[in-house]
Amino acid sequence: MYQDLLEILKDPERVSVNETVLEHHSGGMDYHERKKPDVVVFPKTEEEVVAIVKYAATNKVAVVPFGAGSSLEGHLLPLNRGISMDFTLMNEVVAVYPEDFLVKVQPGVTRMQLNKHLKKYGLFFPIDPGADATIGGMAATNASGTNAVKYGTMKHNVLGLQAVMADGSVVAAGGQTVKSSAGYNLTELLIGSEGTLGIFTELTLKLAGIPEATVVAKAAFESVEEAGKAAELVLQSGVDIGKMELVDAATIQAVNEFKGTDFEEVPTLFLEYNGTAEATEQGIAVIKELMEDAGTVKFEFEHDSLKRAQLWEARHQAALAILGKKPGCKLVATDVCLPISQLAVTIAHTRQLLDEYKLDGAILGHVGDGNFHVAFGLDTDDRDEMERFHEFNGKMVKFAIDHRGTCTGEHGVGIGKMKFLKEERSTALPVMRMIKKALDPQNILNPGKIVEMEEVHS
Amino acid sequence: MYQDLLEILKDPERVSVNETVLEHHSGGMDYHERKKPDVVVFPKTEEEVVAIVKYAATNKVAVVPFGAGSSLEGHLLPLNRGISMDFTLMNEVVAVYPEDFLVKVQPGVTRMQLNKHLKKYGLFFPIDPGADATIGGMAATNASGTNAVKYGTMKHNVLGLQAVMADGSVVAAGGQTVKSSAGYNLTELLIGSEGTLGIFTELTLKLAGIPEATVVAKAAFESVEEAGKAAELVLQSGVDIGKMELVDAATIQAVNEFKGTDFEEVPTLFLEYNGTAEATEQGIAVIKELMEDAGTVKFEFEHDSLKRAQLWEARHQAALAILGKKPGCKLVATDVCLPISQLAVTIAHTRQLLDEYKLDGAILGHVGDGNFHVAFGLDTDDRDEMERFHEFNGKMVKFAIDHRGTCTGEHGVGIGKMKFLKEERSTALPVMRMIKKALDPQNILNPGKIVEMEEVHS
Ligand SMILES: Cc1cc2nc3c(=O)[nH]c(=O)nc-3n(C[C@H](O)[C@H](O)[C@H](O)COP(=O)(O)OP(=O)(O)OC[C@H]3O[C@@H](n4cnc5c(N)ncnc54)[C@H](O)[C@@H]3O)c2cc1C
Ligand SMILES: Cc1cc2nc3c(=O)[nH]c(=O)nc-3n(C[C@H](O)[C@H](O)[C@H](O)COP(=O)(O)OP(=O)(O)OC[C@H]3O[C@@H](n4cnc5c(N)ncnc54)[C@H](O)[C@@H]3O)c2cc1C
Repeated sequence: MYQDLLEILKDPERVSVNETVLEHHSGGMDYHERKKPDVVVFPKTEEEVVAIVKYAATNKVAVVPFGAGSSLEGHLLPLNRGISMDFTLMNEVVAVYPEDFLVKVQPGVTRMQLNKHLKKYGLFFPIDPGADATIGGMAATNASGTNAVKYGTMKHNVLGLQAVMADGSVVAAGGQTVKSSAGYNLTELLIGSEGTLGIFTELTLKLAGIPEATVVAKAAFESVEEAGKAAELVLQSGVDIGKMELVDAATIQAVNEFKGTDFEEVPTLFLEYNGTAEATEQGIAVIKELMEDAGTVKFEFEHDSLKRAQLWEARHQAALAILGKKPGCKLVATDVCLPISQLAVTIAHTRQLLDEYKLDGAILGHVGDGNFHVAFGLDTDDRDEMERFHEFNGKMVKFAIDHRGTCTGEHGVGIGKMKFLKEERSTALPVMRMIKKALDPQNILNPGKIVEMEEVHS
Repeated sequence: MYQDLLEILKDPERVSVNETVLEHHSGGMDYHERKKPDVVVFPKTEEEVVAIVKYAATNKVAVVPFGAGSSLEGHLLPLNRGISMDFTLMNEVVAVYPEDFLVKVQPGVTRMQLNKHLKKYGLFFPIDPGADATIGGMAATNASGTNAVKYGTMKHNVLGLQAVMADGSVVAAGGQTVKSSAGYNLTELLIGSEGTLGIFTELTLKLAGIPEATVVAKAAFESVEEAGKAAELVLQSGVDIGKMELVDAATIQAVNEFKGTDFEEVPTLFLEYNGTAEATEQGIAVIKELMEDAGTVKFEFEHDSLKRAQLWEARHQAALAILGKKPGCKLVATDVCLPISQLAVTIAHTRQLLDEYKLDGAILGHVGDGNFHVAFGLDTDDRDEMERFHEFNGKMVKFAIDHRGTCTGEHGVGIGKMKFLKEERSTALPVMRMIKKALDPQNILNPGKIVEMEEVHS
């Protein structure tokens, strides 16, 4: 296989069976047992992606697209070995259309790289998962982050894309308009498909103007549930909140240690309002009132722009901070999402479960979307701890589904959530399987993820 | 067939071969040659829909779902005859979750019925095509309307749905959360699929709070292109516009005649800002300034709430007004959508084409989305006029596609846009066909729409 791929790429630097490279591509930021691919390729052009996929199709070899490797549910495991296709070198910003608030990028562009590039236009791409993920990986997981409450998720911000399908054909889906009713929505079918239906080679993204003004505030609460209740109030008020993040005491403690910050170690809502200067002043006043109604024990503005940036950076790195506390452990993050009214009760139940299972987890989340995580640093060799984690997670997800929620708000299914998908989407799964079978009959694109199919014969 | 269906529904009132009923179901609000179905059924429950589809699957009979019948591109033509399935009687609001901003409805609920129902909660469903369409029909065409610039289209506001698939199985897709990454996005695959992949039996919709304040204004311009240019300015400014509609002199003239209004008969932007009282005051001030920068010849507020309602009603009924001017003629409406920066140039080109082809069309549109229509009342028996229309339309759509636009922003494909879809989505069409084949192998669900398949054998 190595030799054949070398003939296609004609560049020994971009076809690798080096052990370190294979190891790096043997999983993501997840807790699953790692497995090495046979070979890693680094395409630079769509033509190369096509050639590799055609080779894989002819030889029934699995292909796993690889972005920044930050996914959390075993998305990247080369279960059937084969080819790991790394998009690091396909990282060009292809075209910016500032008057149209649009940008066209290659899939390997990372969100931070993109926003650096866009700054001179006064524009930014609002989707911001904690990691500096690639746009391709973010589209493939339908990622979101702290900005989703205001700007939506990947599916709301990818207007069009180009993908290489399992037979090597190139499909252009969607386009450059904010609206279209032109046939089946393949763009959104491919978004969130985790590399199992097609491989992105180009994406057209909707951008937003960098807001004129931004105000950030912190509201402390006596319990996580009260903070959750306060978040519900904000959403029900209809105020156009920019960000609303919940962090519990354990998370803040970890962040303080990891980043050297000195945030008070109590359950806190981090809030942001942005817009015109006037709107922002009004907006944050409304938010202050709501926090007081909700019984905040301390409400503070963060006017200083450096401190503001530090605050969001701290929030973004919360998961890594938690991991930092437990060296040698692996990051494990749960990810349920609920209708607003079910958020506080689910958080309260989660806290109970953590106590019951004697697990040291930190609760944090994008509560503006009804979405929260429990982050752990777990020793995957500790059978007992892992068993307790799995039981805890199963009960928490079941509670969320029973309360009209979903088993994953943004991290995706990978292999870690497949059993929950069966519960939550029992009637939809057969249709997902039909689609996978129709578009990838040999099951070569990231096999074994989202839906179970027959094994690929390799 | 009649007898078999009667046995299923057990109600002669709900299975009809009455000529008037058949005639009513032989098309929509389109200009295509009408064709009668064999029989019309009026299910009341999901179980009945399942039973009818199973009957159709066993007997290879076509089924065309029928909402309010307001679609414009021949979506409803029973090309292979068979069953027209009318959802008029499946029109219950199933559940309202006011704290979650959610409602669950049956597909036959119309948008006006829904908003009447929601008023007491201080909530509304923002998607508003001109016609009083059904939620099922609106989801099936990915409809939008004057509110889309602020609230998005159907795909942004349907969180979950239940559908009967071609084999009679019931699939629950999506859910009740604003975010989810749980497997393939079947909700959005089905939205816009025009009844060709599944039949909706229940939909969960995202609602919005009725805004505290609303200000409406009119800005008159010397030409339609200038009005288009002004719309671009508004979008590029980033102001959170509520509605922005363009109407040309011919449209206003028709509306004045039809509705007895006295709007000035010049190219005009109708604008709305809504939100809190304070934000609205500021917002509309910004808009006034932008209109002046864009060279408006007259800017006027419409403070009176009755007059405001009248203004938007007039806009909604513009197409009918145009038809009213030409009794005996059929409504024909084009529907391209563009990236913002290409809007004015496309409108100017369209005006030229209308002159060139000596067609009496009125330009109007949801320019806040880059979307505009030309509406005609055409005599479909006038060969020459229809030929000129088709040539005009082909050239206009080609111009739009060449300028990074789409052949339909909201009306959908039906049969009228199939040839343009081939141009615009040439590489995507084979994938659409694979999906249709996988999910409806006998081609019984609204056959002959969006993608060409083999004929159904009936
Ligand atoms: C500290 C930390 C914080 C995080 N915070 C968030 C958060 O706030 N919100 C959130 O949504 N997620 C979060 N995540 C998860 C992760 O960052 C996201 O899932 C992200 O979208 C993955 O992007 P990636 O580039 O790392 O993709 P990878 O992990 O490399 O791949 C993810 C999936 O995408 C597929 N893929 C990659 N490239 C392509 C391509 N070109 N075409 C098709 N498929 C492709 C892969 O096959 C895989 O299935 C976090 C992760 C970490 C480690
Ligand atoms: C005066 C006028 C103004 C209009 N303005 C707009 C506008 O501003 N924006 C816009 O988007 N459209 C507009 N339209 C077009 C039309 O109103 C929309 O396409 C609308 O969504 C159609 O809804 P309906 O209930 O009439 O569906 P129908 O016309 O009955 O059906 C439309 C399609 O949906 C399918 N369908 C219906 N019910 C179901 C179901 N339960 N399950 C699956 N498929 C189903 C049908 O098979 C068909 O393919 C306008 C039309 C008119 C006549």
